[in-house]
Amino acid sequence: MGIDPGTNFTGFGIISVFGKKLDVIDYGFIELSKKKDAYEKLKEIFIKVSNLIDYYDPHEVAFESPFYGENVQSMLKLGRAQGVAMAAALTKGRDVFEYAPRKIKLSITGQGAASKEQVASFLGKMFKITDLPSNLDSTDGLAVAVCHYYQSVTVIKSSGKNSWSDFIKNNPDRVKNG
Amino acid sequence: MGIDPGTNFTGFGIISVFGKKLDVIDYGFIELSKKKDAYEKLKEIFIKVSNLIDYYDPHEVAFESPFYGENVQSMLKLGRAQGVAMAAALTKGRDVFEYAPRKIKLSITGQGAASKEQVASFLGKMFKITDLPSNLDSTDGLAVAVCHYYQSVTVIKSSGKNSWSDFIKNNPDRVKNG
Repeated sequence: MGIDPGTNFTGFGIISVFGKKLDVIDYGFIELSKKKDAYEKLKEIFIKVSNLIDYYDPHEVAFESPFYGENVQSMLKLGRAQGVAMAAALTKGRDVFEYAPRKIKLSITGQGAASKEQVASFLGKMFKITDLPSNLDSTDGLAVAVCHYYQSVTVIKSSGKNSWSDFIKNNPDRVKNG
Repeated sequence: MGIDPGTNFTGFGIISVFGKKLDVIDYGFIELSKKKDAYEKLKEIFIKVSNLIDYYDPHEVAFESPFYGENVQSMLKLGRAQGVAMAAALTKGRDVFEYAPRKIKLSITGQGAASKEQVASFLGKMFKITDLPSNLDSTDGLAVAVCHYYQSVTVIKSSGKNSWSDFIKNNPDRVKNG
């Protein structure tokens, strides 16, 4: 499970890995923008993330960490959002991982500076999703999950550039042709 | 209940308010410094704060917010620590409040730039605590609780400088002479 915590939208993506097969189970976002109170939002994140974990029972939960270029006030807000989401995963006994935004973009597209649209487009091709959601927080959540998968794979295979394009090159048997 | 979230020590203080009577129920700190993993620390904060809430059943939980002078990396860590502690309070249905460090110091000592030692000393006199703890995170936790009490009082009384010394001046009947 991947989570991109935010105070307006918290994106999530759930993938399954059976042997060498990678599938998308679900992705979407928790919408928080209409909630008035910052604490209400944090509570909402905690409850919804807890519910997703109960429902999909992921083994591991990966988070996108806030971008350090944010100002301290945004950092605090994002830190809190991340904190409550992590609390949900940790209290349910799941292993927690974390990746920087640049690392996630790099692992999906091969470019650390890729746009959200590019990340979505790569994921769309990868999983043959034709109706990509207009809200890119959903695909960001999915991207975190996929990045975590690549990182876990990297640990056991020889390293190297770890992008989707390299993955295709190195694992032609694992890519369905559309 | 007051909480001063930190990644090495998370201080807490619990006070009771019966009519005009203010009493210290407990104060202390959750020690996190020996835990190796940042996520283990967050989990520990969540569980310990949850346990304290279950045990003391506070109506309201007030937090010290991180000082904005911190760098973004510290801010993220503190935001997370605050987030998990808030998640514990929010999921237990408690109202959550938050005060800046300067506001807390001002409300206890009359000086926003007071040191932790000064805050501890004022609290010691206020509650006749003779054996003040050497770890000042405990008294910081207590300070948050007392600050929240003053703020709640301020809402219904006329405003003005809201320090302990003013409080003594304005409420001589509420101060026991030692």
